[in-house]
Amino acid sequence: MQVIVDLCVVPLGVGVSVSEYIAECHRVLAARGLRTELHAYGTNIEGEWDEVMSAIKECHEAVHRLGAPRITTTLKLGTRTDRVQSMDDKVQSVRDKLAAG
Amino acid sequence: MQVIVDLCVVPLGVGVSVSEYIAECHRVLAARGLRTELHAYGTNIEGEWDEVMSAIKECHEAVHRLGAPRITTTLKLGTRTDRVQSMDDKVQSVRDKLAAG
Amino acid sequence: MQVIVDLCVVPLGVGVSVSEYIAECHRVLAARGLRTELHAYGTNIEGEWDEVMSAIKECHEAVHRLGAPRITTTLKLGTRTDRVQSMDDKVQSVRDKLAAG
Amino acid sequence: MQVIVDLCVVPLGVGVSVSEYIAECHRVLAARGLRTELHAYGTNIEGEWDEVMSAIKECHEAVHRLGAPRITTTLKLGTRTDRVQSMDDKVQSVRDKLAAG
Repeated sequence: MQVIVDLCVVPLGVGVSVSEYIAECHRVLAARGLRTELHAYGTNIEGEWDEVMSAIKECHEAVHRLGAPRITTTLKLGTRTDRVQSMDDKVQSVRDKLAAG
Repeated sequence: MQVIVDLCVVPLGVGVSVSEYIAECHRVLAARGLRTELHAYGTNIEGEWDEVMSAIKECHEAVHRLGAPRITTTLKLGTRTDRVQSMDDKVQSVRDKLAAG
Repeated sequence: MQVIVDLCVVPLGVGVSVSEYIAECHRVLAARGLRTELHAYGTNIEGEWDEVMSAIKECHEAVHRLGAPRITTTLKLGTRTDRVQSMDDKVQSVRDKLAAG
Repeated sequence: MQVIVDLCVVPLGVGVSVSEYIAECHRVLAARGLRTELHAYGTNIEGEWDEVMSAIKECHEAVHRLGAPRITTTLKLGTRTDRVQSMDDKVQSVRDKLAAG
């Protein structure tokens, strides 16, 4: 089962600057070879369910290891059985509608 | 790693009434023996990370099997290494502050 | 336009214990007379869109005033035009399906 | 109060293809002159709290008008009082950490 995810990891107890922890998550995701897109309020990931979810668990472990005693993550998860759809397809589909007026 | 989750599964392509699909997720979670609390905009779950995440995958599979061609899920995931905290502890902690004025 | 909301306010830069800030949000919501339900990963609110959203803004202002320099909030927002539905209706609808087997 | 938002509007009761509704939201946001970034699982918006929230209300109204009887939206809302931060700043901050190794 393929999944498209929007991942937003928020470490608590480490002050207001969290980019170091987000960067660590990106290292984890990159090491797994997952396709990702960083945006201003999270990271999109696409891949096989088990691989993506295993990587997200490793993100939590890595952020705790870096010193965050508490983490709250918001995740959106999209799956479909009617057709295959990539992250690029989703963005392009909206852009096409906008271009059509 | 223990996790507290807020799970909100939204089936698309099956009309406006979705309670049948949420009920199916509850059957999946109950069959796993996971501790859950249903609320008006989702379901809280507590348990070991791998068990909870495996159950959430099974929810997606079950909702697709019931006929939903597309699902978008919103998940909140809380982990902490500083202490053990249950769902009941979280609610009680806020209630105590409110009672204290 | 009526809305049912799931509100989860997360203050950053104030350590790992956040229940004091959540309690402050509940005081704001109670002062507005809004119907709310606290759960282990947020607070459900129902009411008129403008009143609910104005209260959520006041929550952010109150949490900043209490000392949090940064806040990240996750919100779910449900509206429908086909029929009126309360938070209790939503929970009952799932319970009915579960009771029916 | 400035806010950075991640907006994901999900119309229910209109089938599995939702890009037409997302495009309509983008027309609403563009008409307001708000700065936005479309990504594969939502749209980031930055602006003054009241303007952004008013635009999001108009998105719900427009999506209902287009024919969706039910909408569930997931929103992330970030505010801070310690400093001004744009969407670009947030992305750049993570990229800088990654470039530094």
